[in-house]
Amino acid sequence: MHAEEPPRAARAKRLPRAVRERQILDAAVAVFARHGFHTASMDEISEVAGISKPMLYAYLGSKEDLYVACLRREGERLMAAIEAGADPAAPPDVQLWRGLRAFFGFVAEHADGWRVLHQPASAAGGQFAGELAALRGRMIGLVGRLLVRAVSNGNVAAGIGAATRRDTDGLAAALVGAGESMADWWLAHPDEPVGVVASRLMNLAWMGFGDLVEGRMWVPPHKR
Amino acid sequence: MHAEEPPRAARAKRLPRAVRERQILDAAVAVFARHGFHTASMDEISEVAGISKPMLYAYLGSKEDLYVACLRREGERLMAAIEAGADPAAPPDVQLWRGLRAFFGFVAEHADGWRVLHQPASAAGGQFAGELAALRGRMIGLVGRLLVRAVSNGNVAAGIGAATRRDTDGLAAALVGAGESMADWWLAHPDEPVGVVASRLMNLAWMGFGDLVEGRMWVPPHKR
Repeated sequence: MHAEEPPRAARAKRLPRAVRERQILDAAVAVFARHGFHTASMDEISEVAGISKPMLYAYLGSKEDLYVACLRREGERLMAAIEAGADPAAPPDVQLWRGLRAFFGFVAEHADGWRVLHQPASAAGGQFAGELAALRGRMIGLVGRLLVRAVSNGNVAAGIGAATRRDTDGLAAALVGAGESMADWWLAHPDEPVGVVASRLMNLAWMGFGDLVEGRMWVPPHKR
Repeated sequence: MHAEEPPRAARAKRLPRAVRERQILDAAVAVFARHGFHTASMDEISEVAGISKPMLYAYLGSKEDLYVACLRREGERLMAAIEAGADPAAPPDVQLWRGLRAFFGFVAEHADGWRVLHQPASAAGGQFAGELAALRGRMIGLVGRLLVRAVSNGNVAAGIGAATRRDTDGLAAALVGAGESMADWWLAHPDEPVGVVASRLMNLAWMGFGDLVEGRMWVPPHKR
């Protein structure tokens, strides 16, 4: 392996640091998603990234550091996708729909990132519990803010509009949990189209079972 | 410790095996909930259970075996509580309400059991992922069956009544995830009464945000 280092290092020098770090993180996310933290090896990550192991450590530190960097990048990406999806000018139902669509779109396009963020098998016991809990708390905060914004956009004084901050936070926690759980279910049924999965959660969250049992469904604007 | 063993063993012999195993599992659930699998020690479990370590191993095997036995017992208890709560003769909304109420009641009364079942920090990485996934799959199956039963009890042909098995499973997965997530949120806000927490999820799941933003809320029968 050491015999290979000089050309690799030479190649590495031609790439800006940010590009090199992105390559390493892409490789790490793929390997952690496949094996989980414990079983993943720095050898495999350096191989997939096409970089020597000493350089891998020099760029992003220990395996623990690298795992945390993966969690943070994928968490930021997921939140950015949801925030970008929820158009503040749209009616509340369309805001929720676009947010859900963006969430499931992320899961579809970044399945490895989602696995690292969420699959219990890839977490290393309690070791990263604090990091994951902080990410999840920020996600619930984001969803809570989007819910409040969507609602105050409608002409609504009562209902959620009058709910306490605790109600909104609790509802956001429930919605995040519903999304996570449905995403996991989807990984086990990957032939379902993204629109069908998103629409199912939209119908639960917007219409509720009370409407669904009566046959009232929510339909995206372009299908009305 | 060996000096203490004879009287303990003598005491143990007076108890039927089922009673002794229950004591051990109660102690193990408390210790695993407090420390997580990795940090929990068989010493502490044997101390809390009031039984010698050799007898602890003789009754329920290794620490891994004991952890799996805890997961299974608490999982069965939770599912039995939900199944007993959902009265098949009640209208669909009341069935869902009682099921949710039973779930949050379990979390309140068996907080340690819930922690062992759900807190990521207490899981031992991928080691018990299969066991936990199987329990979760059974829970989603139970909730899906209860949803179908509740719906076919109403005079409903359309809506969920006409939904495919996949729709029901997906919705059940979302509802289970929403419940888990709200239960975790509740552990961080333990001063909220059980009825308030259950009612919040009931309103999301039965009414949906579409009704909530308009100020329409679901109210339990005894408050109507």
